[in-house]
Amino acid sequence: MYPSWTHIIADLYDCDFAYHIEKHSLEVIVEHVNSIITKQWFTILWTLHHSFWYNAFSIVCMLAESHVSIHTWPESRYVSFDIYTCNYSRDNTVGTQLIFEELIHMFAPKNIQKEVIERMMKSNSGKHFFANYRKPVYSLL
Amino acid sequence: MYPSWTHIIADLYDCDFAYHIEKHSLEVIVEHVNSIITKQWFTILWTLHHSFWYNAFSIVCMLAESHVSIHTWPESRYVSFDIYTCNYSRDNTVGTQLIFEELIHMFAPKNIQKEVIERMMKSNSGKHFFANYRKPVYSLL
Repeated sequence: MYPSWTHIIADLYDCDFAYHIEKHSLEVIVEHVNSIITKQWFTILWTLHHSFWYNAFSIVCMLAESHVSIHTWPESRYVSFDIYTCNYSRDNTVGTQLIFEELIHMFAPKNIQKEVIERMMKSNSGKHFFANYRKPVYSLL
Repeated sequence: MYPSWTHIIADLYDCDFAYHIEKHSLEVIVEHVNSIITKQWFTILWTLHHSFWYNAFSIVCMLAESHVSIHTWPESRYVSFDIYTCNYSRDNTVGTQLIFEELIHMFAPKNIQKEVIERMMKSNSGKHFFANYRKPVYSLL
């Protein structure tokens, strides 16, 4: 069996940061992100977080299945997600999508640009080939 | 000024892992990756690394400018890179490309699939717009 990966690349616009800035510390946000990921049975090896000026923060989770990253830019009401998971031991495509859906609720964006890249290797005459399936970008609201 | 980001997504095929597996510990590889990144004046906040079975490893660097990830799969001679950097304080597009070029030398791939995503926000009538410029995928050899 050759491994495949699902990579969701998403940009969130017109996000609402009030809830996070006023009511939660970054540590609580990190715990929430971790719980979203582990609920889908992914294995978190380590989660990093860092605060920047203007209440911006980054969270990067190294998973056994690859990684999740969240970079925020509150002054522009912008958040970027990368959710990148391997389907080696089981098909994680649904779990990856569910992580995405739960994460966007944290920021209540009015617009989303999302792209799903399926990376896949298969053997053909001794060579590896790459199939990159792109689904159309869409926008909410 | 509105921030923009450069995101290099690359998949390396038919890589050579002999050098890393036989001659270097993962800690030495991590140091080398860190030096490639800092040489381009990026700020590393933290670097995570993890070893898997079959000499596979992952390295994830959280940068002040976003992140760099390396996921390896020696049994399939495959490596994936994500190099994602912000151009807020200065134009980092050249530095981002130079990191990519130095990283690929570590794995001597015979084939590369690379894509550069430029993410950009600009104001227009009070709304943010997203320009996603895609350059064509290319392959070496």
